[in-house]
Amino acid sequence: MEIKNIDGGICAPKGFKAAGIHSGITKKPDKKDLALIYSEKICGAAGVYTKNKVKAAPIIVTKANLEDNTAQAVICNSGNANACTSDGTRVARKMCELAALELGISSCDVIVASTGVIGQPLSIAPVEKSIKALAGALSENGSGDASSAIMTTDILQKQIAVSFNIGGKECRIGAIAKGSGMIHPNMGTMLSFITTDTAISKVLLDKALKAVTEETFNMVCVDGDTSTNDMAVILANGLAENSIIDTENEDYNAFLKALMHVCKYIARIMAKDGEGATKLIECSVSGAIDDENAKILAKSVIKSSLVKAAMFGADANWGRILCALGYSGAELDPKNVNVTFVSEFGSIEVCKNGSGIYFDESKASGVLSANEIEIKVNLHSAQGKAVAWGCDLTYDYVKINGDYRS
Amino acid sequence: MEIKNIDGGICAPKGFKAAGIHSGITKKPDKKDLALIYSEKICGAAGVYTKNKVKAAPIIVTKANLEDNTAQAVICNSGNANACTSDGTRVARKMCELAALELGISSCDVIVASTGVIGQPLSIAPVEKSIKALAGALSENGSGDASSAIMTTDILQKQIAVSFNIGGKECRIGAIAKGSGMIHPNMGTMLSFITTDTAISKVLLDKALKAVTEETFNMVCVDGDTSTNDMAVILANGLAENSIIDTENEDYNAFLKALMHVCKYIARIMAKDGEGATKLIECSVSGAIDDENAKILAKSVIKSSLVKAAMFGADANWGRILCALGYSGAELDPKNVNVTFVSEFGSIEVCKNGSGIYFDESKASGVLSANEIEIKVNLHSAQGKAVAWGCDLTYDYVKINGDYRS
Repeated sequence: MEIKNIDGGICAPKGFKAAGIHSGITKKPDKKDLALIYSEKICGAAGVYTKNKVKAAPIIVTKANLEDNTAQAVICNSGNANACTSDGTRVARKMCELAALELGISSCDVIVASTGVIGQPLSIAPVEKSIKALAGALSENGSGDASSAIMTTDILQKQIAVSFNIGGKECRIGAIAKGSGMIHPNMGTMLSFITTDTAISKVLLDKALKAVTEETFNMVCVDGDTSTNDMAVILANGLAENSIIDTENEDYNAFLKALMHVCKYIARIMAKDGEGATKLIECSVSGAIDDENAKILAKSVIKSSLVKAAMFGADANWGRILCALGYSGAELDPKNVNVTFVSEFGSIEVCKNGSGIYFDESKASGVLSANEIEIKVNLHSAQGKAVAWGCDLTYDYVKINGDYRS
Repeated sequence: MEIKNIDGGICAPKGFKAAGIHSGITKKPDKKDLALIYSEKICGAAGVYTKNKVKAAPIIVTKANLEDNTAQAVICNSGNANACTSDGTRVARKMCELAALELGISSCDVIVASTGVIGQPLSIAPVEKSIKALAGALSENGSGDASSAIMTTDILQKQIAVSFNIGGKECRIGAIAKGSGMIHPNMGTMLSFITTDTAISKVLLDKALKAVTEETFNMVCVDGDTSTNDMAVILANGLAENSIIDTENEDYNAFLKALMHVCKYIARIMAKDGEGATKLIECSVSGAIDDENAKILAKSVIKSSLVKAAMFGADANWGRILCALGYSGAELDPKNVNVTFVSEFGSIEVCKNGSGIYFDESKASGVLSANEIEIKVNLHSAQGKAVAWGCDLTYDYVKINGDYRS
């Protein structure tokens, strides 16, 4: 099956419109801070959410609204997380109601999300004041604006769309995301809104999202902090008119593959755009006793502050990688571990059978000077494998997070 | 019982001598890099070790040598971790043999430790060349030199001694430690060598060290990376001539209290001297469902990169504290959480019943501008409590770890 990258982001699938405007929730006058996504037809929908026990109000409201696995719109603000305040749930519900009223749909079919600072009351006034303008701005070209409106400390816009073929019909999946700090592999690790015109049953939509999340969003780590607000949701309106996918047949596999493509792209770009990051770090583990252990090992390397700082400094300090593997809690035999650094500038093996081997330090620095680096770990035990994504730890991470609120 | 701080470090207890010299393991000509500790009388001894599955060679050799719970000397180098090399165990054993030969003791009674870069072969030559000079330098005033010789990126020297009374006899405990980066609450988190002239059975010495480690060394986190090399060992030679402590009576409790005092001091100063740190952060959790949950919660706050960066910036971003409590995995009811910041400059409550309350931002900045900050968390559930220590995340942490090896 061919998966083709196309333009249009979340509006590439038929029947979806989006908008993003400045409502005044953030103080910066030019920063878009309120996004709306709308499907002309009601959608099957599924979501995955943060596992943090401290949950933001929109998580609670969205979970309730998605209990019937249907939705027709998403409203999302940046600049305030609507978390840890006494009045948050009321405000999140009100956001749904305002959007629903304007769109002529039920407020139970609105997904609400927020991102920004925790613990400050979110005023409903800017949303009230601007909901009409927001709905009026809905457009088939609105994916970029919606994507901008959900960014916080993000630098890179995160949007993608693909087309693929199911039973002779062209189907599409689009996605936007935000995610820069407070990112840790323990779903959810971000906000991501995914749209598709594929006709697929609610049960399989949910199953596909969960399966793909495990391999993509849950394998990203920026700083080890699992946010209070994160969610990924998918809306499927069926307008591609493929015959509905309701068994795990080859059509389902085609959909799964396209969704994996989309979510892997989002996961990688989230890591690349980690707060203060200058480099995307990919850790691929092979030869683990099983995939579960491989995942734990890959995430442990990606999460290590010492590995991250070494990558920032283009320092081939592979001992820290062995150290991170060793304390991960996963099974491994240190004597069987090989480590190789790979980038566009070449490949260099630095550790074999758990011990250092001679390597040319200046060549290693060269390999590590690229802005995308792969750390390949082979454990030579069995067939388990996994890939995790992260970024380097930089002065700018400290700067951004030393005074985030002001 | 009164515990009195005294001079002398590890040589304060009767019968102990120490030395530290430059042997050439490190390239810096003035940096002491090899330490020796010696007791004139053979000691009961106990150790706690890193839980990292990738263990440095000295860990393996020391564990074997301490199987009979006796020791008479410690040899420790800085500048090279003697970890992840093919020849490490032979080198570690050779270090014991060289020290034993010079001191006229059995090599099985020598504890060996190393700290520094992982994965580079440690040459025995500098140790061979300088062992005579090292043994010749042993002195009752040698604690400071030994302490200097085990430092790596440490800035503060870490040594302490106390005296206390057991059954009318004056007993003493002394300690030195190194620990700056790669520190995480999962024993062991550092190197610490503790001496005492208290007469105590091997069984209770071991029990006391393990109990105290849980409340002190295991509650320190600098960067979440558990090292391959860490250990804390205690040697007790009995020269104080108290009647031997061999049951858990009030004498044992007195010893335990003095040891707790020493190890808590070491734990706090390790956190304060975390790589790049400008501030000591103490998180005290009360009202948890039990002490075990309180420990998990306190460590999660101390470990959060986002909390650490906020403390660096004197930013009262308490939402990140709630976030870290929420993803810790411990039991808590977010609606019952209060958070207060305390320092020498005052105290300010910022969160009550899980929600933000009004507070004066400039007063909060003032409180957080101190170089020792307490984050008080009350969960109002039951009586569980714990304290953990860490430090802020700074530009200098990134700088130090971006290019550690050169």
